[in-house]
Amino acid sequence: MAKDFITKEENYSQWYNDLVQKADLAETSAVRGCMIIKPYGYAIWEKMQAALDKMFKDTGHYNMYFPLFIPKSFFSKEASHVEGFAKECAIVTHYRLKTSPDGKGVVVDEDSKLEEELIVRPTSETIIWDAYRNWIKSYRDLPILANQWANVVRWEMRTRLFLRTTEFLWQEGHTAHATEAEAMKEAQQMLNVYANFAENWMAMPVIKGLKSANERFAGALETFCIEALMQDGKALQAGTSHFLGQNFAKAFDVKYLTKENKQEYVWATSWGVSTRLMGALIMTHSDNNGLVLPPKLAPIQVVIIPIFKTAEQLALIAEKVLPIKKALEAKGISVKFDDRDTVTPGWKFSEYEFKGVPIRLAIGSRDLKNGTIEVARRDTLEKATYQFTDIENKVEHLLELIQINLFQKANTFKFNNTYHAENWEDFKNILDTKGGFIYAHWDGTPETEQKIKEETKATIRCIPLNNHLEKGKCVYSGQPSTQKVIFARAY
Amino acid sequence: MAKDFITKEENYSQWYNDLVQKADLAETSAVRGCMIIKPYGYAIWEKMQAALDKMFKDTGHYNMYFPLFIPKSFFSKEASHVEGFAKECAIVTHYRLKTSPDGKGVVVDEDSKLEEELIVRPTSETIIWDAYRNWIKSYRDLPILANQWANVVRWEMRTRLFLRTTEFLWQEGHTAHATEAEAMKEAQQMLNVYANFAENWMAMPVIKGLKSANERFAGALETFCIEALMQDGKALQAGTSHFLGQNFAKAFDVKYLTKENKQEYVWATSWGVSTRLMGALIMTHSDNNGLVLPPKLAPIQVVIIPIFKTAEQLALIAEKVLPIKKALEAKGISVKFDDRDTVTPGWKFSEYEFKGVPIRLAIGSRDLKNGTIEVARRDTLEKATYQFTDIENKVEHLLELIQINLFQKANTFKFNNTYHAENWEDFKNILDTKGGFIYAHWDGTPETEQKIKEETKATIRCIPLNNHLEKGKCVYSGQPSTQKVIFARAY
Repeated sequence: MAKDFITKEENYSQWYNDLVQKADLAETSAVRGCMIIKPYGYAIWEKMQAALDKMFKDTGHYNMYFPLFIPKSFFSKEASHVEGFAKECAIVTHYRLKTSPDGKGVVVDEDSKLEEELIVRPTSETIIWDAYRNWIKSYRDLPILANQWANVVRWEMRTRLFLRTTEFLWQEGHTAHATEAEAMKEAQQMLNVYANFAENWMAMPVIKGLKSANERFAGALETFCIEALMQDGKALQAGTSHFLGQNFAKAFDVKYLTKENKQEYVWATSWGVSTRLMGALIMTHSDNNGLVLPPKLAPIQVVIIPIFKTAEQLALIAEKVLPIKKALEAKGISVKFDDRDTVTPGWKFSEYEFKGVPIRLAIGSRDLKNGTIEVARRDTLEKATYQFTDIENKVEHLLELIQINLFQKANTFKFNNTYHAENWEDFKNILDTKGGFIYAHWDGTPETEQKIKEETKATIRCIPLNNHLEKGKCVYSGQPSTQKVIFARAY
Repeated sequence: MAKDFITKEENYSQWYNDLVQKADLAETSAVRGCMIIKPYGYAIWEKMQAALDKMFKDTGHYNMYFPLFIPKSFFSKEASHVEGFAKECAIVTHYRLKTSPDGKGVVVDEDSKLEEELIVRPTSETIIWDAYRNWIKSYRDLPILANQWANVVRWEMRTRLFLRTTEFLWQEGHTAHATEAEAMKEAQQMLNVYANFAENWMAMPVIKGLKSANERFAGALETFCIEALMQDGKALQAGTSHFLGQNFAKAFDVKYLTKENKQEYVWATSWGVSTRLMGALIMTHSDNNGLVLPPKLAPIQVVIIPIFKTAEQLALIAEKVLPIKKALEAKGISVKFDDRDTVTPGWKFSEYEFKGVPIRLAIGSRDLKNGTIEVARRDTLEKATYQFTDIENKVEHLLELIQINLFQKANTFKFNNTYHAENWEDFKNILDTKGGFIYAHWDGTPETEQKIKEETKATIRCIPLNNHLEKGKCVYSGQPSTQKVIFARAY
């Protein structure tokens, strides 16, 4: 399976595309920029959803569902919001097809033109805050801690599977609060939820920070983000949490009666992660043998492959390993016993390796005699022979080790690819020869950030939270600076 | 809360609408025909999803995700399919907005017109079968047992919350098989899954049957369905499972190589249930005091309400009931302890009653002394005083009883509202005075069915599976008939 698979070193971008398709994660569709998420890819996304959804609920949130369509007029109500999304949205203008005059196929029925066009949601702040106006009357109605799992559409010109697609799946939290402090606390709390998920489920180290004004969400006062570093030295924004202030409350006239009987505008946050995380997961761990999955997100955590020639041999092996499978499943571990006789064990080995199954157990007639089983780790590709005794606990322990090892490996990579640039030559040199996260002084102006972007394609990924303050000179303009921020080229 | 709530007897339709909104299940949105599913309503839908998803997986299915948009040309490929859906679909024609000439708001940028329009999926057979052409090469690639949870859009002219909305949420299974027999078996299996879910989770009795040609899914050879009877005597189609034959395989040229090295067209099924089930659930059990939920689908199964005046009293009650809450939760029962002091116990009583919480536990200072607790059932509105001893097992048992009672009650209603009409006068009379399911002989022609529909608004709900065969005369035409089928006016 992995035979005609290009290496990361040859062409990282093609390696990624090939991996996504050959590992049956996703493929392009007949619709420009829209992807098909295949069953194996979707199973990983479901694991992500389940873990995140539980974290949201554990922090007091609940789900709801708002319409796919947004009336065009809603868009204009928040000035910077429309500016940010107007240029890339799918627009519904008609609601009926009719047989074409030549009798072949169908055409749009012009009589079905809508009075007001509908926008396929690129994000739902506007339609949600229009409804919150009716939901919120007094302080007793606050906070609202709602989330929705949904599809959204942004008409991207250059698309890549998972990383940037016209339609993608995501969750969008939309909360409403009585006070600024509470909304700010919520935005930070959700940033921490995302960081926790990224590090402890995806095994992907992240930097928590604030976006500069240029990179802020259209309509936010502050955008918090988690930034991860991919294997090719490019950064990836993995999740954002926005403090929206009273912008949307003002645009949609959402006020509440305080305990003191005053009318005040409501404070808001929104926060989201998307199927983009699938791309981040792939580019954090995978290798030239295919996908590598952290155990906590692997649809199949352990695969058991019998080595047999006859049905009798298979029966003896099955008798031995089925109880092991059961014992592992009782621990909540997902196990596949692949006893097909239509493909060879070697073919199965490379298939599951390519699909990133964390642990492979192989067992043949000799193992049966010796009371042993071969254990192979996907993360290190190491093989070892284990005694049967207590095998389920050994495997459970190994899964935990693999989860930790993947995080540590990625964290070491991040550490080794984080640089400090003290001057402009340095900066460009690191960017062109090494990539990675670059700490550099910045004068704090959008103009400088814009110029750096134009000259190098690097952007400010974030201003890290609790950043170390130190006086210095901007790496580009030479103007005074109070802190270093993180630059990188990014997905 | 229920004070200004109209009774079912006064106006069933308004009773339904009021209930949906006052119980915080859903509301209309700013977008024509699209609903907002509110957190409490969505929590019920999530319970439905979880139970169904598990049933799908237990029968070997897996999830995937296909694009929201379908190229217009795909639609015309299966003739009856386009006929069925062309008149009610949302059409995307442009992908960019621009500032309007007068500077106020935004308008569609005509330069962004799409070469080929995109249809917002009303159902996904066409785009899925276009992809299956590449997924299926040989018998080894079969079966495909895929499902997707998605939103779909059908431009309905008359909409009602949950029952008929322009956008709705659903799941759509799309399977591919090597043989006709296997596909037929799959379609029947999924019908049984739906019936099991309806009866054992929703506590809603259903009749399993086949649709007549008039009512068949656009593109199917056979449509299996489950039909339920609502409290007002109207029927509701609660789920359908389609045997698609080779129609879509032929339209999209999907062939496979058999073991015997021949090229054959693939056999297909599709099956779906939607947020319409929420409407069915409401109209099966609810009463003039509000929503009634079967325990298996209730987001809150037990509510505990302390009766207290002082903080000390509350503390003593909490000390007693929090361990009960924990014990119930350990059994997987969801419990809410509502100790708010901003509203009265009476207010809480009617709130949870209106929201259909199956069991209410109330406890005051006197109960503490006596070692008792008041237990109220939502289904019968009965109250009883229980001893504390073993309370968690008593409550667990009572939840099971309520689940069974709701089914039995609905089943008795269905039995009492099922009639046999032997002639046309009978038929019209039953329909106008009683409603319900009407068994009547039918000559088997679409013409007769159409005329009956025109004259009475009643349609054939289904031809029951394993129907009793008996010779008779069509209730309308007098022509010979081999069996009675079920007629009703329907949602």
